[in-house]
Amino acid sequence: MFRILEIGPDGLVQVLEGTEHVGPPPEGFIRWIDLEKQCEADLTLLAERFKFHPLTIEDCSHFDQRPKMEEYSDYLFLVTHGFRLTNATSDPLETLELHTFLGEHYLVTVHAEPIPALEAVWNRLKGEGALIRRGVDFVCYLVTDAVVDSFFPLLDDIAVQVEEVEDHVLDGSGHVELSDIFRLKRLLVQLRKVLSPQRDVFALLAKRGEGWIDQRTAVYFRDVYDHVLRIHEWVEGTRDLLGNALDAFLWSASQRTNEIMKRLTLLSAIFMPLTFITGFWGQNFEGLPFESDGLMIAMLASCAVVPAAMVYFFMKSKWF
Amino acid sequence: MFRILEIGPDGLVQVLEGTEHVGPPPEGFIRWIDLEKQCEADLTLLAERFKFHPLTIEDCSHFDQRPKMEEYSDYLFLVTHGFRLTNATSDPLETLELHTFLGEHYLVTVHAEPIPALEAVWNRLKGEGALIRRGVDFVCYLVTDAVVDSFFPLLDDIAVQVEEVEDHVLDGSGHVELSDIFRLKRLLVQLRKVLSPQRDVFALLAKRGEGWIDQRTAVYFRDVYDHVLRIHEWVEGTRDLLGNALDAFLWSASQRTNEIMKRLTLLSAIFMPLTFITGFWGQNFEGLPFESDGLMIAMLASCAVVPAAMVYFFMKSKWF
Amino acid sequence: MFRILEIGPDGLVQVLEGTEHVGPPPEGFIRWIDLEKQCEADLTLLAERFKFHPLTIEDCSHFDQRPKMEEYSDYLFLVTHGFRLTNATSDPLETLELHTFLGEHYLVTVHAEPIPALEAVWNRLKGEGALIRRGVDFVCYLVTDAVVDSFFPLLDDIAVQVEEVEDHVLDGSGHVELSDIFRLKRLLVQLRKVLSPQRDVFALLAKRGEGWIDQRTAVYFRDVYDHVLRIHEWVEGTRDLLGNALDAFLWSASQRTNEIMKRLTLLSAIFMPLTFITGFWGQNFEGLPFESDGLMIAMLASCAVVPAAMVYFFMKSKWF
Amino acid sequence: MFRILEIGPDGLVQVLEGTEHVGPPPEGFIRWIDLEKQCEADLTLLAERFKFHPLTIEDCSHFDQRPKMEEYSDYLFLVTHGFRLTNATSDPLETLELHTFLGEHYLVTVHAEPIPALEAVWNRLKGEGALIRRGVDFVCYLVTDAVVDSFFPLLDDIAVQVEEVEDHVLDGSGHVELSDIFRLKRLLVQLRKVLSPQRDVFALLAKRGEGWIDQRTAVYFRDVYDHVLRIHEWVEGTRDLLGNALDAFLWSASQRTNEIMKRLTLLSAIFMPLTFITGFWGQNFEGLPFESDGLMIAMLASCAVVPAAMVYFFMKSKWF
Amino acid sequence: MFRILEIGPDGLVQVLEGTEHVGPPPEGFIRWIDLEKQCEADLTLLAERFKFHPLTIEDCSHFDQRPKMEEYSDYLFLVTHGFRLTNATSDPLETLELHTFLGEHYLVTVHAEPIPALEAVWNRLKGEGALIRRGVDFVCYLVTDAVVDSFFPLLDDIAVQVEEVEDHVLDGSGHVELSDIFRLKRLLVQLRKVLSPQRDVFALLAKRGEGWIDQRTAVYFRDVYDHVLRIHEWVEGTRDLLGNALDAFLWSASQRTNEIMKRLTLLSAIFMPLTFITGFWGQNFEGLPFESDGLMIAMLASCAVVPAAMVYFFMKSKWF
Repeated sequence: MFRILEIGPDGLVQVLEGTEHVGPPPEGFIRWIDLEKQCEADLTLLAERFKFHPLTIEDCSHFDQRPKMEEYSDYLFLVTHGFRLTNATSDPLETLELHTFLGEHYLVTVHAEPIPALEAVWNRLKGEGALIRRGVDFVCYLVTDAVVDSFFPLLDDIAVQVEEVEDHVLDGSGHVELSDIFRLKRLLVQLRKVLSPQRDVFALLAKRGEGWIDQRTAVYFRDVYDHVLRIHEWVEGTRDLLGNALDAFLWSASQRTNEIMKRLTLLSAIFMPLTFITGFWGQNFEGLPFESDGLMIAMLASCAVVPAAMVYFFMKSKWF
Repeated sequence: MFRILEIGPDGLVQVLEGTEHVGPPPEGFIRWIDLEKQCEADLTLLAERFKFHPLTIEDCSHFDQRPKMEEYSDYLFLVTHGFRLTNATSDPLETLELHTFLGEHYLVTVHAEPIPALEAVWNRLKGEGALIRRGVDFVCYLVTDAVVDSFFPLLDDIAVQVEEVEDHVLDGSGHVELSDIFRLKRLLVQLRKVLSPQRDVFALLAKRGEGWIDQRTAVYFRDVYDHVLRIHEWVEGTRDLLGNALDAFLWSASQRTNEIMKRLTLLSAIFMPLTFITGFWGQNFEGLPFESDGLMIAMLASCAVVPAAMVYFFMKSKWF
Repeated sequence: MFRILEIGPDGLVQVLEGTEHVGPPPEGFIRWIDLEKQCEADLTLLAERFKFHPLTIEDCSHFDQRPKMEEYSDYLFLVTHGFRLTNATSDPLETLELHTFLGEHYLVTVHAEPIPALEAVWNRLKGEGALIRRGVDFVCYLVTDAVVDSFFPLLDDIAVQVEEVEDHVLDGSGHVELSDIFRLKRLLVQLRKVLSPQRDVFALLAKRGEGWIDQRTAVYFRDVYDHVLRIHEWVEGTRDLLGNALDAFLWSASQRTNEIMKRLTLLSAIFMPLTFITGFWGQNFEGLPFESDGLMIAMLASCAVVPAAMVYFFMKSKWF
Repeated sequence: MFRILEIGPDGLVQVLEGTEHVGPPPEGFIRWIDLEKQCEADLTLLAERFKFHPLTIEDCSHFDQRPKMEEYSDYLFLVTHGFRLTNATSDPLETLELHTFLGEHYLVTVHAEPIPALEAVWNRLKGEGALIRRGVDFVCYLVTDAVVDSFFPLLDDIAVQVEEVEDHVLDGSGHVELSDIFRLKRLLVQLRKVLSPQRDVFALLAKRGEGWIDQRTAVYFRDVYDHVLRIHEWVEGTRDLLGNALDAFLWSASQRTNEIMKRLTLLSAIFMPLTFITGFWGQNFEGLPFESDGLMIAMLASCAVVPAAMVYFFMKSKWF
Repeated sequence: MFRILEIGPDGLVQVLEGTEHVGPPPEGFIRWIDLEKQCEADLTLLAERFKFHPLTIEDCSHFDQRPKMEEYSDYLFLVTHGFRLTNATSDPLETLELHTFLGEHYLVTVHAEPIPALEAVWNRLKGEGALIRRGVDFVCYLVTDAVVDSFFPLLDDIAVQVEEVEDHVLDGSGHVELSDIFRLKRLLVQLRKVLSPQRDVFALLAKRGEGWIDQRTAVYFRDVYDHVLRIHEWVEGTRDLLGNALDAFLWSASQRTNEIMKRLTLLSAIFMPLTFITGFWGQNFEGLPFESDGLMIAMLASCAVVPAAMVYFFMKSKWF
């Protein structure tokens, strides 16, 4: 489904629909062509009108590329990733992959599903022609910046979860499951897999001022690069903390079991001398003074004193 | 066993057989010579006809090279690796090693066993002369790309297995064996050993547009490089997850044993007071009121109440 | 809240207040403008008077940037971080973020809260005009150096805590909590997140003598760079030691529980033979010589000797 | 003990003995001087005749250098390491250190003990004058290649041992000792300490075609470099696997102990109810119906049924 | 306390004392000024006479710098570290920090405490004027080389301790304490903190032949660089081994406790059936054949046979 945002030399912003407008803009015009839910036919159309390289067209039909930047003679091809947390428990992290063709006078964005960040930029640009007049590279900046910034609520969300896990592990309340920690680890692995190539892409965009990105716009990409770096460092630090939380979780789960066993063993130990005492007087030796009331009282007393003494000793030794 | 694919200046594709055609093609022709199950005599023939360097010929007789690219004055020598999962339990990963000589007008591929990916390219080229006309470097791209792409089903297969292991570890169903995890670890170590030099090879091919690879073909090698990178990152991420799975497996196996012991100890603890009670009334003190029915009923009651209370307490404390 | 320190060509230092003096200094003058608790209006004023880039102005309104250095056509934009330990248990490390604009004749510092290190430099400069005359880059050095040096008391503080943790873990006195170790780990992760970009910033400042930093001042920045490196290495070394302390803590906590269980099991083992002996003579076989005084004495003796022998054996085997 | 291999312009190979021939060869001649079991006097002689730098002479008297390449004005000084497995249990890895001086027309090799690989090259060259005629750098290649290739049988040997350890750990047969794993770890640490500088040496030799190594010979050193890289990756992969094997070993040894304890505790648990039953009827309450044959049969039955039921339950729960 | 070694153009070596000779040497002379136990006044004197940069003078008053090399217009400023093992248990590693100013005709060394290695060089130079005539850079090499070589006895000492720890851990003799391992870890962390910047310093000295270091002397610094590299690799390898030793120690300590518990549990298990047997015949059922001598003998037999059979079974299963 194509939609086109065009600004003419007169600064008038127009929203065009229909495939007949797909193609490089006329002289003096700037075009942003957005293709959502791309099908085979759409891509063929793009290839025809823009002469895009077969490899990039092929990339656009499989949405499982890693972030990258490839320079072609006529355009720059970018793949960037955003993320969205979903409620699905099986795979809670939905990747929003955005393919961008940045030409001299046009920007073509291809994505499988609606990307909220891109939508926001679209609507903002519809109203503000001045922003588009700063060049397609600036529009490209706006879009990729919005995609990268959509990471931050995600990070906050994960941070809260990691902190919860850590707190629950430390207070030993048992509200954490091993699978929670594994889910978070998996999330971080997935994020890291995307972030390190994404970092490289924006480092290149920030530097390569000459060529496709204007020097003035490169400053903005430097800013995006900085955000990606910050996210990357956050992920590394969080991985570290989560690794510790996992260790502590495993340990405290084992420790909990051990603690229970220790208490049960304490209980057994307390009854052990009692068993001996009663066993002793359960013998059938005729020589034993079974009729002595004094001994019986001593027996009764020791049945009370021995366990009490043991409990006192255990408590003093902090064995409980 | 040699087989030769030749295209003349007239665009006619010919399949030649027999050792007399082994050698550089005539002026204007392009040749792809494929040598399967190489023997000493075949390699000597190649060395004679093409003047290949003794070191490269020697490499071709031992199929245990690491991926590499070596430039010689007349040709480029490439070693790339593909993989195939086999059913053998002892060594489930079969390496498909491909040695390639890329000259100006010829491509020589040497391999010990039939490589399905190469076979597919061969058959495709037999029918499409146009593809060969784009140069031997493009044919070289087609072959190496096919070899690299044969990694992906393998990765999917491993991914499924890792996920299964992880799930089984987490649900504690005990369907995992330590040897399963070790087998997967070994697989990943083996993959990584190949992937990091392979990555370097394709990075070089993608950059060194001048020389042996045409600028237009280098774009395609950049694509292959990207795939190798993606595989590499996948392997790193999977190693990370598998390491966690191993930790969790070892822990949960220990934990399972501990849990059982805890329950058994609980059982012992419940019987401990009973042993004391019956032991107490098993004493032979004559002073004890053995004929008291009230005490007997109290004894009987406590034999029921004490364990019940303990079970209640343990359950409330979530010790079960 | 703006405040301005100005030195004229006559070497006279003046402290100006009020927004009308905010702006580049007159010819021959040098100005340091310090903005604390910045509000929207203040930043707008700065943007107007100094023509600062919108991105840097935006950065100044969110105090969660990572340390960085950005070059603009008219000025250098620096973000550096200091730290302060607070008494708050929840988040004991307060970040002091300092944003600096270094122009040819002016220095603008923006921060949210009062920074003691900056305050000290301000007061020192108020008295010593000579220091300011060495150029704004030197003033910038004084400020950033003071911020970095404010790390050291923090490090000493953490070092003492880590050592305490380690000592308590080793002597097994149980004065450590898992949460203490986690708090320290978190501190180090936070420090590291700041230090590695900060290191890069000062490396750049130390090298880029030409341009914004005078060659003579660059020597001083090299010194700051060296301090940052030292802090960085300290953090790495401390992380290593803390990781070991964590391992040892978890182990010694488990070990303590195991030791107690071992002793309880020893106790049970000692009573086991006694239970057998008394049980034996508790049997009702009429054939057993219950009236033999010799056996009774033997029984009494073994009730004393057997546990004594076991205790002796256990002690000799160092099982206690 | 010196021995000298000389080839004249006429292609005649001569083996010279005696110290009078030690020194640079006459015009048009090429010399390989091999010094085994060097003593102070020999080194002084070398220093005098060849004007070797005092530092390199000093290096030759202590055979504990790390692999390195040093360029001097007249010659290249190389230190390379080979290895040999010995039967000694204390230190099973014997280092064969080879010091090489590569001049324009001469090669001087110094080593403490006979190196089999070097011996083989010596004997081969004695017969093949043509090989020496390719220059001293080629002779140098032959020697260092032989030394590096002597790693491979060692690797195979270690690989077999690691695999055995892993297999024994996995099948739990208990044929592994902790000290076996430590010995292998120590071996790998030792190998790695040598391999990473050795890799750098050969990388330099492979690149620096101009100067001491001819372009044609540099191709051969590239091959050696590749072998060293392969060994290095092998060591890294093996370290990884061995680390896992260690984890699994420690775990399975603990697990074995735990398993035994679990079974013993199962046994105790089975007897616990029996103790209660017999204890119950061992009481002296007169109210208890001791003369009831029905109860006695019930008692006897429960002594059989209760443990049987427990064993059945434990087996069903897979607690055994 | 200053002392000065001066050599004139006539090759005469003189030892001067007194502060009046502190300063650059006269034309044609070379001076090494050594300052031990520096005080404020001494440093001020140095700053005055040599015009040293305030930053370097400030560095000399705090002996806690990291190894570094800083180039100033007139001289090179070096900080290098040596180590000495002390008998103090609290902090067994004493750092010997040496600050060196290397000018064109003078060398100034500043240190807090007497450094044996430096003392040895001083005495050697007093006698050998020829060595000083090779230039101050060579004197600088002699001093720093001596400082670095003083690492080696330290390393041997640590190596012996690590090996002892490892052996004791493996033979399970219990002669190791956790604190021993921690002390060694701490030593290695401290060494590493110094070694990695020291390595960089000597790499720079070895390369920067032009400038302050003569090409001929740079060769010697290359040698020192090599030694530092060797020490660095040694530390890395030892850290690895010590990490394994720590794991094994923690495990074997736990394992020892577990072994004891296993044996105690075995003991309990052996007595369990006996308790049942005696308990059985302790019942008061009148139906039981208490007067049967055959059963009594069977009872007595089973009291002997059952435990014997169990011990036999446990031994056969290698449960002991």
